[in-house]
Amino acid sequence: MKIKIITVGKLSLKPVGELVREYSKRLAHYSPMEMVTVSSVEKGLEKLQATDFIVLLDAAGRSFSSEDLARWVEEKQVRSTKQIVFVVGPAEGFSREAKEKANLLLSLSKMTLQHELALVVLLEQLYRAFTILKGEPYHK
Amino acid sequence: MKIKIITVGKLSLKPVGELVREYSKRLAHYSPMEMVTVSSVEKGLEKLQATDFIVLLDAAGRSFSSEDLARWVEEKQVRSTKQIVFVVGPAEGFSREAKEKANLLLSLSKMTLQHELALVVLLEQLYRAFTILKGEPYHK
Repeated sequence: MKIKIITVGKLSLKPVGELVREYSKRLAHYSPMEMVTVSSVEKGLEKLQATDFIVLLDAAGRSFSSEDLARWVEEKQVRSTKQIVFVVGPAEGFSREAKEKANLLLSLSKMTLQHELALVVLLEQLYRAFTILKGEPYHK
Repeated sequence: MKIKIITVGKLSLKPVGELVREYSKRLAHYSPMEMVTVSSVEKGLEKLQATDFIVLLDAAGRSFSSEDLARWVEEKQVRSTKQIVFVVGPAEGFSREAKEKANLLLSLSKMTLQHELALVVLLEQLYRAFTILKGEPYHK
């Protein structure tokens, strides 16, 4: 299973870019992954495959504990999902059309996170999910 | 009203330190604030005043939307709270004694965030809360 992360809009804070590199390196240790930046949600969604499992990050979406997220990732692996695509949205949120294409709206927090921070938290949680599934200690 | 943020344990990721500086600078524009790093929760709590409003960050605590947090901060200001103290805890969580001293357990996310990221998210949300209260645009 591959993990693809689509971010809408550039990262403006330099230290965020460094954190993204740090956590994506850790995540890549456990799973094939790809990160893409696009200028609009539509551009991000148009190239997806019908078999992709599409997850939009949305403060009002479904919330998981870290353990729940780990079990969810495991279930996707067991069901032979080819690719999970996470979309870290624009500040104004997703359109109704985009939400209708999604298989899951995932909430990292009830609070509205700046999209750059949401990306960092997502990467950290995916990394954490794999350490939970492998029973490995979390690297600090 | 002053905001004090106590972090238990050093920050190990360099870019996190830069983000903390960035967001604390933004927050300080709106509110007197102080940040302290301590080696244990007990050390952090022992110097607090009886009038301090103590908030422990805990994944299982109460969750707010960004707007809820802004209204909560406003209410504290209206009630002439002298100081709100946020404690960003250790990886193993808070002891029962520490929780009993707290006025509020606040959950930034149902997910367990690395304490360094929790600090960044907290600062970002406090900054965001003041922009909401002032009706000012969020600086990206």
